[in-house]
Amino acid sequence: MTLDRRSLIGAAGLALAAKGAVAAEPSAPAHAPAPPRDVTRTLARYVVGARFEDLPEAVRREGTRTFLNWVGVAIGGSHHETLDVAVSALKPFSGPPQAGLFGRPERFDIMNAAFLNGVSSHIFDYDDTHLKTVIHPAGPVASAILALTEMRPVSGADFLNALVLGVETECRIGNAVYPDHYDVGWHITGTAGVFGAAAAAGKLMGLSEQQMVWALGLAASQPVGLRESFGSMNKSFNPGRAAADGLFAAILAEKNFTSSDGMIEARRGWANTVSTKQDYREITEGLGSRYEAALNTYKPFACGIVMHPAIDAAIQLRNENRLTPDQIRGVALKVHPLVLELTGKTAPRTGLEGKFSITHAVAVALVEGAGGEKQFSDRAVRDPVVTDLRGKVAPVVTPGVRPEQVDLTITLADGRVLTRHIEHAIGSVENPMSDADLERKFVDLAEGILPEAQIRRVMALAWDIGRLKDAGEVARAGVQA
Amino acid sequence: MTLDRRSLIGAAGLALAAKGAVAAEPSAPAHAPAPPRDVTRTLARYVVGARFEDLPEAVRREGTRTFLNWVGVAIGGSHHETLDVAVSALKPFSGPPQAGLFGRPERFDIMNAAFLNGVSSHIFDYDDTHLKTVIHPAGPVASAILALTEMRPVSGADFLNALVLGVETECRIGNAVYPDHYDVGWHITGTAGVFGAAAAAGKLMGLSEQQMVWALGLAASQPVGLRESFGSMNKSFNPGRAAADGLFAAILAEKNFTSSDGMIEARRGWANTVSTKQDYREITEGLGSRYEAALNTYKPFACGIVMHPAIDAAIQLRNENRLTPDQIRGVALKVHPLVLELTGKTAPRTGLEGKFSITHAVAVALVEGAGGEKQFSDRAVRDPVVTDLRGKVAPVVTPGVRPEQVDLTITLADGRVLTRHIEHAIGSVENPMSDADLERKFVDLAEGILPEAQIRRVMALAWDIGRLKDAGEVARAGVQA
Repeated sequence: MTLDRRSLIGAAGLALAAKGAVAAEPSAPAHAPAPPRDVTRTLARYVVGARFEDLPEAVRREGTRTFLNWVGVAIGGSHHETLDVAVSALKPFSGPPQAGLFGRPERFDIMNAAFLNGVSSHIFDYDDTHLKTVIHPAGPVASAILALTEMRPVSGADFLNALVLGVETECRIGNAVYPDHYDVGWHITGTAGVFGAAAAAGKLMGLSEQQMVWALGLAASQPVGLRESFGSMNKSFNPGRAAADGLFAAILAEKNFTSSDGMIEARRGWANTVSTKQDYREITEGLGSRYEAALNTYKPFACGIVMHPAIDAAIQLRNENRLTPDQIRGVALKVHPLVLELTGKTAPRTGLEGKFSITHAVAVALVEGAGGEKQFSDRAVRDPVVTDLRGKVAPVVTPGVRPEQVDLTITLADGRVLTRHIEHAIGSVENPMSDADLERKFVDLAEGILPEAQIRRVMALAWDIGRLKDAGEVARAGVQA
Repeated sequence: MTLDRRSLIGAAGLALAAKGAVAAEPSAPAHAPAPPRDVTRTLARYVVGARFEDLPEAVRREGTRTFLNWVGVAIGGSHHETLDVAVSALKPFSGPPQAGLFGRPERFDIMNAAFLNGVSSHIFDYDDTHLKTVIHPAGPVASAILALTEMRPVSGADFLNALVLGVETECRIGNAVYPDHYDVGWHITGTAGVFGAAAAAGKLMGLSEQQMVWALGLAASQPVGLRESFGSMNKSFNPGRAAADGLFAAILAEKNFTSSDGMIEARRGWANTVSTKQDYREITEGLGSRYEAALNTYKPFACGIVMHPAIDAAIQLRNENRLTPDQIRGVALKVHPLVLELTGKTAPRTGLEGKFSITHAVAVALVEGAGGEKQFSDRAVRDPVVTDLRGKVAPVVTPGVRPEQVDLTITLADGRVLTRHIEHAIGSVENPMSDADLERKFVDLAEGILPEAQIRRVMALAWDIGRLKDAGEVARAGVQA
């Protein structure tokens, strides 16, 4: 067997060699740019120092909406088979009953609770979205710190600050490597999310700057999730595991478990290893003045955003005209080509397939006035009234219609013609869901899982998160009795 | 904000689109080879079906040696600061005391125990090496299954079979992506190791073929470790976390937590995401006839392999001639250029720096007749007898000397000249450590941590692993009272 450089010195040796402890490996090619400096440390310093008082009001507000939306989707997913399986698998290994699960009676140690709430909140793919990176920010971050908060009480203001800083961390790191990192196959919510969880948990633990550097380094060592897993339970696994892994990183760093100082930006660090693009300015520039957390969005409809303009238009015309299915003779849609490319299924057989059928989405929106998880259930796609109407929906690819637009025309049996143009669907950055919309979504998700009075109480506490004396109150209020 | 394909459909949508549930994304370029089929499933089927009875005797023997060496290094690292920190950090979150730690009194749930034993076994970088990939195979695999075995007793034969299959799994997957995967920055022991842990744990759990496919898929979702972490505690973190993550994957899969069916080979699966090279034949060809596990090697000396030929020669001449330091006038070494490039430090100040000093390594070997962890301690590099002799060691780069060779010449005060040529150092595939060598290494590592009688007992049980009625006996015998 011929020995090569790697086997000869051993991994530790190559590392020390690269660090200059001994004669180094041949240096990088001459055309390579100078390595970026102190990216991890700059981010760590910001997270450690940032105060709730410094957060602009708009960022606090969006952080609160992010939190409320996450609580709703976590309750909504809590009795899905995915969570039943995970709970039963992990029960025998859990530590002390430190933290609860939304919508369920079981208690787990905080790392398992972070995992399970993180899984639950992503099951319907109905959580928040940072559209620039398609990161779902709340799952990894909120799941980690709410569990932690149950064990080590903190004020709601500190909690909200940590939530925003965690979202900031993951979305900025995501920006630095998107789209190459996502295109090659990573589920960016899990890979960037673990940094967000570590940063937010480390913030609440009061880590020093050096400890935060190590926490981010241990987070970098645990990227979670591949896109190939989409369509299986493994997809929801990813934000949950990112939450638990980030928490694990912070817990070790708090006791001075060391990592390297430049794990994000070093030559053989995270960004170079997981992406062909690295724009470190996205991480270090404008910290404390520009907030990615302010760009978070929430889905009004439980399906891909490509169908949202059409559903929005359908619901508007239905409600304004009090339409009933029997009144409708035909529905014409002018759409961008992507709509048919991605959601062109005409005969969906399951709720999940319904999420990829623009004709189903419009039909069920006209019948039920909504596009929630219930409208993408097996029940809904088999409803004879819906399937009948589905056959009357005719989407037509039309030049000049942008992806975020739609033109919807309904011809009624009495000859009237109703039209609606959508420029930006509800839920976009330009046309965000109102607080009342978020409440309706929350209630819709929680109904049938928690009693109505409890739903109202959890929602009120979530809205009030920034003012609570003890943030853990939300967790305790959201469990099943 | 302009929407793009990703934000429009949402991640789940793109996945289903890619799976053909709806009109697919633009297909891969015409020059791309046809995607490999059933790699994950072929491997899963093999692991599920393989029996201890089918293992060649040589493979059983190497598996036993792998296990014994791992127990020794895990005991050896058990009181290092790295482990003290990790134990104190994780204690508050541990589940029931299901499994012990080598060399320590604490008990943890099996996932935390797997992590901690995995960390411990890598601290000195003195564990086993699969030279083709520089994977350290035992850490992730043995740590996972020995913990599991304490909770769910299995025979030693089943244990040894699972250990071999886990090593086979990680080394074959490593072969498929090495060297590109390692060169870009991954710590391959952690990234491939998690598959080994999942496969071995899943084997002992009796997973079905489909469950094993899912376990491998959940493993693929959790690659652990970047080379930038080398030189910090984070390096030992990696095999430990790989052990725990693989166990976590198997535990979920056992309850039918699903993943995708082709997570290793799919277009956006593991191999394409983490490497520019994919040779799937390394995974699927010759299963059950060619064993990577038979190629495992063990380090006789606690440093990079580049120094091993010189240390080997020095110890041979010392012992054969009963040399004492005062007899030695000078030591000349003919070496390959890599030796000085990687281990050219002439005045090491710490034990760790001593691992990168060929002059120290030869001097201490001549004084103490060994190259163990004790010879690379702060004490050893500061020993005046050693430092004095160090100044008399003269390595010279010599054309024609290959990296695995050395020519060592000692000139004595009485005028005699002793020479030794090494073709393959002890510990190489061609010149493996004998069982007696492994025993001496084991004892050297365990001395001062466990009482002598206990060391002998643990070692005897480890040698006997394939015949034990209950494999967990080794774990129970190796803890500190």
